[in-house]
Amino acid sequence: MTVCLAPTQLVAQYQRVRSQTEALCQPLAIEDYGLQAMADASPPKWHLGHTTWFFETFLLLPFLPGYRVHHPGYDYLFNSYYEAVGDRHPRHQRGLISRPTVAEVYTYRAAVDAAMAVLLEQQGDDPEILSRTELGLHHEQQHQELLLMDILYNLSVNPLQPAYRPDLSGAIAAVPSALAEPSWIDHPGGLVDSGAEAEGFHFDNEGPLHQVYLPPFRIADRLVTNGEYLEFIEEGGYGQAQWWLSEGWTTVNREGWQAPLYWQQRDGVWCQFTLAGLVPLERSAPVCHVSHFEADAYARWRGGRLPMEGEWETVARTQPRTGNLLEGDRLRPIPGSGQWYGDAWEWTASPYIAYPGYRPAAGALGEYNGKFMCNQMVLRGGACVTPADHIRPSYRNFFPSHSRWMFSGIRLGANL
Amino acid sequence: MTVCLAPTQLVAQYQRVRSQTEALCQPLAIEDYGLQAMADASPPKWHLGHTTWFFETFLLLPFLPGYRVHHPGYDYLFNSYYEAVGDRHPRHQRGLISRPTVAEVYTYRAAVDAAMAVLLEQQGDDPEILSRTELGLHHEQQHQELLLMDILYNLSVNPLQPAYRPDLSGAIAAVPSALAEPSWIDHPGGLVDSGAEAEGFHFDNEGPLHQVYLPPFRIADRLVTNGEYLEFIEEGGYGQAQWWLSEGWTTVNREGWQAPLYWQQRDGVWCQFTLAGLVPLERSAPVCHVSHFEADAYARWRGGRLPMEGEWETVARTQPRTGNLLEGDRLRPIPGSGQWYGDAWEWTASPYIAYPGYRPAAGALGEYNGKFMCNQMVLRGGACVTPADHIRPSYRNFFPSHSRWMFSGIRLGANL
Amino acid sequence: MTVCLAPTQLVAQYQRVRSQTEALCQPLAIEDYGLQAMADASPPKWHLGHTTWFFETFLLLPFLPGYRVHHPGYDYLFNSYYEAVGDRHPRHQRGLISRPTVAEVYTYRAAVDAAMAVLLEQQGDDPEILSRTELGLHHEQQHQELLLMDILYNLSVNPLQPAYRPDLSGAIAAVPSALAEPSWIDHPGGLVDSGAEAEGFHFDNEGPLHQVYLPPFRIADRLVTNGEYLEFIEEGGYGQAQWWLSEGWTTVNREGWQAPLYWQQRDGVWCQFTLAGLVPLERSAPVCHVSHFEADAYARWRGGRLPMEGEWETVARTQPRTGNLLEGDRLRPIPGSGQWYGDAWEWTASPYIAYPGYRPAAGALGEYNGKFMCNQMVLRGGACVTPADHIRPSYRNFFPSHSRWMFSGIRLGANL
Amino acid sequence: MTVCLAPTQLVAQYQRVRSQTEALCQPLAIEDYGLQAMADASPPKWHLGHTTWFFETFLLLPFLPGYRVHHPGYDYLFNSYYEAVGDRHPRHQRGLISRPTVAEVYTYRAAVDAAMAVLLEQQGDDPEILSRTELGLHHEQQHQELLLMDILYNLSVNPLQPAYRPDLSGAIAAVPSALAEPSWIDHPGGLVDSGAEAEGFHFDNEGPLHQVYLPPFRIADRLVTNGEYLEFIEEGGYGQAQWWLSEGWTTVNREGWQAPLYWQQRDGVWCQFTLAGLVPLERSAPVCHVSHFEADAYARWRGGRLPMEGEWETVARTQPRTGNLLEGDRLRPIPGSGQWYGDAWEWTASPYIAYPGYRPAAGALGEYNGKFMCNQMVLRGGACVTPADHIRPSYRNFFPSHSRWMFSGIRLGANL
Repeated sequence: MTVCLAPTQLVAQYQRVRSQTEALCQPLAIEDYGLQAMADASPPKWHLGHTTWFFETFLLLPFLPGYRVHHPGYDYLFNSYYEAVGDRHPRHQRGLISRPTVAEVYTYRAAVDAAMAVLLEQQGDDPEILSRTELGLHHEQQHQELLLMDILYNLSVNPLQPAYRPDLSGAIAAVPSALAEPSWIDHPGGLVDSGAEAEGFHFDNEGPLHQVYLPPFRIADRLVTNGEYLEFIEEGGYGQAQWWLSEGWTTVNREGWQAPLYWQQRDGVWCQFTLAGLVPLERSAPVCHVSHFEADAYARWRGGRLPMEGEWETVARTQPRTGNLLEGDRLRPIPGSGQWYGDAWEWTASPYIAYPGYRPAAGALGEYNGKFMCNQMVLRGGACVTPADHIRPSYRNFFPSHSRWMFSGIRLGANL
Repeated sequence: MTVCLAPTQLVAQYQRVRSQTEALCQPLAIEDYGLQAMADASPPKWHLGHTTWFFETFLLLPFLPGYRVHHPGYDYLFNSYYEAVGDRHPRHQRGLISRPTVAEVYTYRAAVDAAMAVLLEQQGDDPEILSRTELGLHHEQQHQELLLMDILYNLSVNPLQPAYRPDLSGAIAAVPSALAEPSWIDHPGGLVDSGAEAEGFHFDNEGPLHQVYLPPFRIADRLVTNGEYLEFIEEGGYGQAQWWLSEGWTTVNREGWQAPLYWQQRDGVWCQFTLAGLVPLERSAPVCHVSHFEADAYARWRGGRLPMEGEWETVARTQPRTGNLLEGDRLRPIPGSGQWYGDAWEWTASPYIAYPGYRPAAGALGEYNGKFMCNQMVLRGGACVTPADHIRPSYRNFFPSHSRWMFSGIRLGANL
Repeated sequence: MTVCLAPTQLVAQYQRVRSQTEALCQPLAIEDYGLQAMADASPPKWHLGHTTWFFETFLLLPFLPGYRVHHPGYDYLFNSYYEAVGDRHPRHQRGLISRPTVAEVYTYRAAVDAAMAVLLEQQGDDPEILSRTELGLHHEQQHQELLLMDILYNLSVNPLQPAYRPDLSGAIAAVPSALAEPSWIDHPGGLVDSGAEAEGFHFDNEGPLHQVYLPPFRIADRLVTNGEYLEFIEEGGYGQAQWWLSEGWTTVNREGWQAPLYWQQRDGVWCQFTLAGLVPLERSAPVCHVSHFEADAYARWRGGRLPMEGEWETVARTQPRTGNLLEGDRLRPIPGSGQWYGDAWEWTASPYIAYPGYRPAAGALGEYNGKFMCNQMVLRGGACVTPADHIRPSYRNFFPSHSRWMFSGIRLGANL
Repeated sequence: MTVCLAPTQLVAQYQRVRSQTEALCQPLAIEDYGLQAMADASPPKWHLGHTTWFFETFLLLPFLPGYRVHHPGYDYLFNSYYEAVGDRHPRHQRGLISRPTVAEVYTYRAAVDAAMAVLLEQQGDDPEILSRTELGLHHEQQHQELLLMDILYNLSVNPLQPAYRPDLSGAIAAVPSALAEPSWIDHPGGLVDSGAEAEGFHFDNEGPLHQVYLPPFRIADRLVTNGEYLEFIEEGGYGQAQWWLSEGWTTVNREGWQAPLYWQQRDGVWCQFTLAGLVPLERSAPVCHVSHFEADAYARWRGGRLPMEGEWETVARTQPRTGNLLEGDRLRPIPGSGQWYGDAWEWTASPYIAYPGYRPAAGALGEYNGKFMCNQMVLRGGACVTPADHIRPSYRNFFPSHSRWMFSGIRLGANL
């Protein structure tokens, strides 16, 4: 969490990121802001408030002389999980809060933004303030992605299947009707570096830089497509125990999974519910919204395996940092090939644990990443809803094995 | 369900009732319309849609030539429990539906109202149409009461404790600081009539008129007050098994009940969350928001019992039909005495079962009352949120023994 | 709870009832004594201990000078639900107690029986002791029935389907292949007596004797048979909402009910798991192990209804008190006709509530019946596992609407 | 799974292991054999049957000509989790099966043992048979440990706290009253070997042998003691969020954990429920029955961390393979120092995943280990209930982070 932006850059970046969050909410009806269709999927209004609470709590209150909280109840409502900061509203009840209204939350944002402008102007050369502000902006960008994940989920349970952005429904043009077979990239393995370099922003969980020994391996040059995944479905993969981890098999049967999340058949045609609404399944686009269990079972069925995060990182370092990201405004995976970033986060075979020598930051901000290092798996790469600032070889995303509402896909690996 | 209004009266009544529902929603923010804080407490938007669906489904579709449904998805969304009509959206997920928006639901109401005006003008002399319309209006009035019950509950879970009608918070003026002891009304018992007379509107569950034998009994001339109930609390009633039904005792302990719903202590002072917001507990006002378990335990602790519904009805027939009702716009119980209607529904000791000779209506409309005659208790009288049309000696309200979110209170009875 | 037996009779009765309980356990393997396959179905060992605890707690400890508890831990283990007596072991964990062993529990029984013999010899003329002893014996007889209900349930979940009494599997001889249609008994109604007479033992819930007004009614002269109930199944009754109470319909669908408990199809043939093991369904025997929901739905489908308890009692007073009871050692319903007692308890349409003027006994023994008067339905008559002492017109059995593991059947009623 | 024993050795080993299992059951009452106090803790009878089913299913049925299953229902009852073998009885209902009786299960064991003797005599030179038999014996030894874990848990829920082996209650003699501070063993790290060598029996999850890169590290020379862990408790560790993984903190609060499993305070004195019954807590003995969450929090609180499994293995290779194991018949951790095996399994910081190049065996036997590589943590070393055959540097035990009923303890690690 070293400071990577000059003070003036940071002010501009602050404005850019904060407006971007609000821009993402533009297509919403007031009624959509309060939805929470499962405990994991927070209401958009909560994201707007929580990211603002972060700046108020970790910057304005400790550093801006005379600052008074905007509303005494917001600390309780908009704390997410920081135990050191105090009690908080139960996560699964975030959808039951009609007040503050949407307008009041926007007022809260404006008030905090005004105070932050003062703070940055007055004390913009204080490294701690710069560093925390930068962290707050990266935090807000993470919530931009969560916002879109949650909007998609929350709208998906409505039998009317309303679209967040109907204007995007026809957006995939000039699609190749079939993709070439994926090629393997072979790597001799050996002792490699892993983790973030000193320069450039990164989260604490990306460091420290350390060495890892890799046996020889291979890794596919593109993501698994919907069409390829459909073969697994059509050959009965969801009904055959031998491909699945034991907990995965239990989950498949308990939940009645028969396809990735958001897939449905309409009159015999496979469709997918997306941020553009219900659209026909695009067979040459990367498969998305699969759990780790499904990614792992698919890989085993294909005779391969998921890559380890060190393998992915080693190869990804040599690849261009481009892809179908949030800024491209497609908001769903699109056909293509050879991209190492964007479209869909890629499940790895690596549990999310600390790198050797990892130490979380002190105080409440230290609760950011380390305490989640348990029963989650690492995803790498980035997705079509990921801001470009969050694309780098060392970036570690993580979710439990059963989660499917993030934009998660599959890249195959294998032993050499 | 005989027709009790002349056609022209019915048109006026239709407009009056329908506008009244919308007037009750005026104080709501758009964000409040979608709240559902428990499965029982539907969102206001759902009430607006469901009462409209009733007229569309049972009047416009069968009777108005050429009528087309306003929206093909609404039948699924706004059916409450009519099995004969088709599938329906799960009750506990009503709060997850942001679309149709509030504006769209008001448009739905306007469209159905316009079509109903045509229907009533064209066929206003058809007894079946008149009868169903009248039933629809009584149904909508029941939902007016539910609407207020649900708004209160849905706002109560918000830690900010927002008030539905802050303008009412000071409304109880000229309160007697203490009430006289209640007096007993003695009755010799005998063979009495029970149930609705033929003339005048009533629901099917109020009939048929039949005879019941009552032993001699007494019944209090007013409701139990907050102050009287507080004595039960202060003497440890919630911690003493001997006053409670076994299932009640289990419930008290599982739920951690220590007082009626919406009661809370602030700095040692008892307050009550109401439609006017959080107000100090008014000791001489009737106790409200108690379960049947609490009413029954209180009565046993006082050395009495709850009245049977036949006892209540026999005495209530002789009383004036006045009280603190919805039209009075107080929206919470107020101090007073001798009222047999209004303030709070009165728990009886009678399980809700069919009267001898009861037969539900044929078809889907027959699902109205009979199928709920199981594991519920009868309440009599009416509450401060009950429309005046729903006040009569034969009216039977009913809820499960553990429910507390309706406006329910206590009148004591005893053996003679 | 007046005393009905002379002291010497009571001693003999004590020995008879206590041995009868142990005789019922003779067919069990040691391993069977600890089974608890659902919270409601206690292990046989618990029944043996609990009935003994009753005598120890309510007779030996208060009345026998110098008596010391047999084991200090048994009070906690073998209290069932008496709040006034102290804490108790959670009901659903009774199957997790391997110690005391079966042999130790029999030792407990012997020790208490020896002390009871001393007590009755020394103070057998004390009316309170006589009265409590008599109550304890009736209590133990109720547990004899529960013991058999629970054994049947506990064995039923074993995929090997072991029989409690394989010797009974062929016991139904001389079965009429078809029964005559049931006849109706018509009654003019009027003001009738209900409840127990002063003389003879009865439980507190059977009194006081009081008057009830009945409209004219009719009641069938025999129970509904398996064959008749099968018609309801075969005509799709379990899939048609219109026959069911709302809560019943929810239960049918949640539990996947398609037939009475213990019915199963083997190679297309209906069989029934019984205390004699799996036997072919006997079509002319009374249907058994139906819930109130099923009894009520069946009656509605047949165009009738269930009788009220007052109706049943009025007619049953005039009938011989004979039938297929525990003493007959058949242990399952047998074909026959015209019996008003035995075979299967008969669901009524009456919720289980207090009679006018009912008062429970004082102290812990007063917890016996009154506190369960909530959300249960009355059953009348008696079953093939009911001791003959529990057959009388005023006897009120009661269970929740969804329960099926007791021996419960159906008699039709109707309006006249 | 290469064969490591000569055929004659194997016959002797077969008899030795099989009798050892039965010897462990000698202290049980018949009533204890059926207990299952949680889904994870199977009844002793089930262990006896399941280990026997393994030989019947994977050896007798495929290899012994003319062999007929001992009982057609046992395959369903005693399959544990082999999906490829067929349906199986639900794990959490194993305690509901009173038949087969204990005697019948011993008969089953004897019959299978007799047939196995024939098979080994006739075809004892078939490598597949030898290999499977050896696997079956190691499998049975794993169940010996599970048997003791489960017996302890199943007895612990009994309020009478019966002891499995009261004769062991005084067994810890000559206990040093205080231990020296633990010393650190420092290691320079580097590229090291991990995994099982080719010779000697090992499970598939221990291979293949591969290289791992370790940064410099240190590791304690003994386990954390009860006394040291008590300091964590006494300083409020269970109430301070900062030491805990997020999921651990949730678990601590949901379950109300305040100490390791089986610890309880009696009159202010810490005691521990053990296989010897309730004994005073021995402060210098290794702490046992802690979850990974507790081990991890304790290590963080002490300023260290848990070791990685590669670190442990690297140091343990140089240590003597001795310790307090099953054969020592102490059955609980004892004070001592410097032991790398026995007393308690040691939680590592390594999630249980496949080694590079791991491939499970083909067919049903391949379901043995690989499918559990998800959301579990590795434990190393062995415990006081572990057979000596299961002590080796490469042995990988694994459990979910919240599990506490195995004999699990803590060894500290740190960065250098």
